[in-house]
Amino acid sequence: MAKRIAIIGLGLIGGSIGLALKQTELERTEVVGYVRRPEAANRVLKLGAVDIIKDSLAAAVDKADLVILATPVMAIKEILAQIGPYLPHGCTVTDTASTKVKVMQWAEEYLPPTVNFIGGHPMAGKELAGIEAAEANLFQGRTYCLTPGQNASPASIQLVVGLVSEIGANHLFTTALEHDNFVAGVSHLPFVLSSALVMATTQSPFWAKMSRFAATGYRDLTRLASQHPRMNYDICLTNRENILNWIDEFIKELNQFRRLISEDSQELENAFIQARQARQAWLEKHDKKD
Amino acid sequence: MAKRIAIIGLGLIGGSIGLALKQTELERTEVVGYVRRPEAANRVLKLGAVDIIKDSLAAAVDKADLVILATPVMAIKEILAQIGPYLPHGCTVTDTASTKVKVMQWAEEYLPPTVNFIGGHPMAGKELAGIEAAEANLFQGRTYCLTPGQNASPASIQLVVGLVSEIGANHLFTTALEHDNFVAGVSHLPFVLSSALVMATTQSPFWAKMSRFAATGYRDLTRLASQHPRMNYDICLTNRENILNWIDEFIKELNQFRRLISEDSQELENAFIQARQARQAWLEKHDKKD
Repeated sequence: MAKRIAIIGLGLIGGSIGLALKQTELERTEVVGYVRRPEAANRVLKLGAVDIIKDSLAAAVDKADLVILATPVMAIKEILAQIGPYLPHGCTVTDTASTKVKVMQWAEEYLPPTVNFIGGHPMAGKELAGIEAAEANLFQGRTYCLTPGQNASPASIQLVVGLVSEIGANHLFTTALEHDNFVAGVSHLPFVLSSALVMATTQSPFWAKMSRFAATGYRDLTRLASQHPRMNYDICLTNRENILNWIDEFIKELNQFRRLISEDSQELENAFIQARQARQAWLEKHDKKD
Repeated sequence: MAKRIAIIGLGLIGGSIGLALKQTELERTEVVGYVRRPEAANRVLKLGAVDIIKDSLAAAVDKADLVILATPVMAIKEILAQIGPYLPHGCTVTDTASTKVKVMQWAEEYLPPTVNFIGGHPMAGKELAGIEAAEANLFQGRTYCLTPGQNASPASIQLVVGLVSEIGANHLFTTALEHDNFVAGVSHLPFVLSSALVMATTQSPFWAKMSRFAATGYRDLTRLASQHPRMNYDICLTNRENILNWIDEFIKELNQFRRLISEDSQELENAFIQARQARQAWLEKHDKKD
């Protein structure tokens, strides 16, 4: 494991990585943190998510073997540009953003060739944001996507694989292109649907009364609308084309259901049967509990 | 409470009502059951969901004060026609179907005027179906909609309100028209969206690989696709116009998000903020936990 790990950004994800690392017995690893707003430093230290907080990006990455960028995706470009000159020779940098193509491009552009970059995306999260929501077991058993940069050394890849394993997640190698396309379908499209469902229903003139009829189904379907708005926005900015394609695919399927419903078609039951079977197959294959 | 309650249909909902009634100390109430398939009778009795199983609808409703129809909605019409002649004078009949307009029409048409009909809809459920999935606390704290028929006596309404309270739910009086419109938005539209999302994603040529990227967000958004296909189908048949209207409202909102995403619009963040706030307001008002 690294002797010195720097975590830049200590919200839900960065804070949880810090807490998870603290829980393992990394006696010889020092975890250094950096937060943009100084007032957050005390809360981070009190929770024990890092050993020490530095007051500049340059100081935070000084002597670090591994730098973890855990900020919103749109902040990563600027941070890469800022830390570039201060990164130790041979150091490894990774991030935790939900989209990877843009991040890989920025890393290519702003990091010196002596630095290894490995894109990362822990497939874990919850609606609550910020260090207060952080928890050591957030990544337990979750998939953690890794997209190694072209010039990343085997040792640097091994370092990040080790990090993923330390915090309890399972790494999954992928390309940035494939990653962004796939998560647009299974993660980004869903939060757009959740948000559109909330808007369609709560803007009804009858919502005050209608809301009393909304139960667990509505709660589950709208859950992703409670994700951090800035995160959702950044994801859309950096994965626009894929998300638009998936919205179009979805509207096609929805119009298919619309047609079957309007025609009272017997086929409609088959469509529900097929959807249920496909979901059950996914649940079983990936051992997801309902 | 009633001296004799008949439950027609002992799947998830009917079975759970039976178990919930058994848990309360209704010493002087006998619960009689009827199941269409004789092979289900033993399982029902073994689980203790009813005191006794009768082998005909006529025998089941004989001397009953309260008859609960807990079958799929499309079976209700025929059952009402069949039990009509056997219902005791002054008896109260209720159902548990997810749509109410058609059910109220059938009750009007097939029940003798000496019988009270009160439509019912417990807003509880889960993806699993059948008596094996039944549980006594399924209705605990849930909303239970009631749509009393035009000629239902105050005493009969009180009887059903008492039933709702016995099984731990909170009754909510509404009209059938209002009910069907509202639940189309917060419950039926959501299961259509879930099913369409499953179809749009699982039919991708890359699904085998892509499925590994699907996590808790996908699981929650697709949960309602695992509801019983026959139930979903019946709901669409009996609430078509409302569901079609809500699909159209939803597509309008989704296209609005699509436009903001394609334009990289700053407004997009505001839309996510607004959706999140509207959902939080609903969660808080109705004390729903995430």
